[in-house]
Amino acid sequence: MPPCPTRVLGIDPGSRLCGWGVVDRDGARLTHVDNGVVVLTDGAPLAERLDRLWSALSDVIARYRPAQAAVETIFTNRNARAALILGQARGAALAALAHGGLAVHEYTPQQVKKSVTGSGRADKAQVQHMITLRLELPEPPQADAADAVAVALCHAQHGGAGPPG
Amino acid sequence: MPPCPTRVLGIDPGSRLCGWGVVDRDGARLTHVDNGVVVLTDGAPLAERLDRLWSALSDVIARYRPAQAAVETIFTNRNARAALILGQARGAALAALAHGGLAVHEYTPQQVKKSVTGSGRADKAQVQHMITLRLELPEPPQADAADAVAVALCHAQHGGAGPPG
Repeated sequence: MPPCPTRVLGIDPGSRLCGWGVVDRDGARLTHVDNGVVVLTDGAPLAERLDRLWSALSDVIARYRPAQAAVETIFTNRNARAALILGQARGAALAALAHGGLAVHEYTPQQVKKSVTGSGRADKAQVQHMITLRLELPEPPQADAADAVAVALCHAQHGGAGPPG
Repeated sequence: MPPCPTRVLGIDPGSRLCGWGVVDRDGARLTHVDNGVVVLTDGAPLAERLDRLWSALSDVIARYRPAQAAVETIFTNRNARAALILGQARGAALAALAHGGLAVHEYTPQQVKKSVTGSGRADKAQVQHMITLRLELPEPPQADAADAVAVALCHAQHGGAGPPG
């Protein structure tokens, strides 16, 4: 019996947008399933926007039924106000992943870049380019969605996903 | 027909504990309904703990069916790392309130203290003492729960809650 593909949901929660990406790993083969962006800046009250993020990610989980989730570690070399706002979005997003039954794996930005481009110092454009190439996408995803696909790809490659091919 | 009491849920989300408190306002009369604390430091993975917070607050909302919610504004005069961690808990908590259909009203710590004790410079012990006295509680609530009751009381008093008595 061939091993089942394992599906990974990657997310990139920012304070204005939350990217998400779904990647399948079937043995050594990595396949892009879907990606998208949840917009958090529409003038609605904070709690409502955070609930919309929670609900949007819950919908993604219900639709694609990933087995595992991955997110980038945050280094807070920014100011406290920005960290609070980012933390709020990240908290709502992580709560949604766990509510959907997913264990959340964390990777540093360097691990993600290295895993996708071969270099831990690659820039965003390079990451975007490489996932487009490697997953044979018809066009590059939106930048935040690309980062989410990249962390999903990173986790899928790290063998955290499914039996070896 | 007498006006219906309006029920307010106050929360005090911290990075280790999240206090909650439910207060009824019936005309000028304020009544304590219940309060409690959700513990976030049990060694479980972050996403799981955030989901537990989300779920615990959703349970409180389902049980007590508050009409409105209140929370303290955060001033981020702390370091970025602490702000991120606090933000994550706050984000999961606010998402739960909005998911439960509640509009979330924000008050500064000074507004809450002033409304409960008469002074915007009151300390925690004074807040705890005054809500115990004013709501005729048999004993002072746990400190974080007391802060949550205080913000609920503040909102109820601000007339945000229900018709005038």
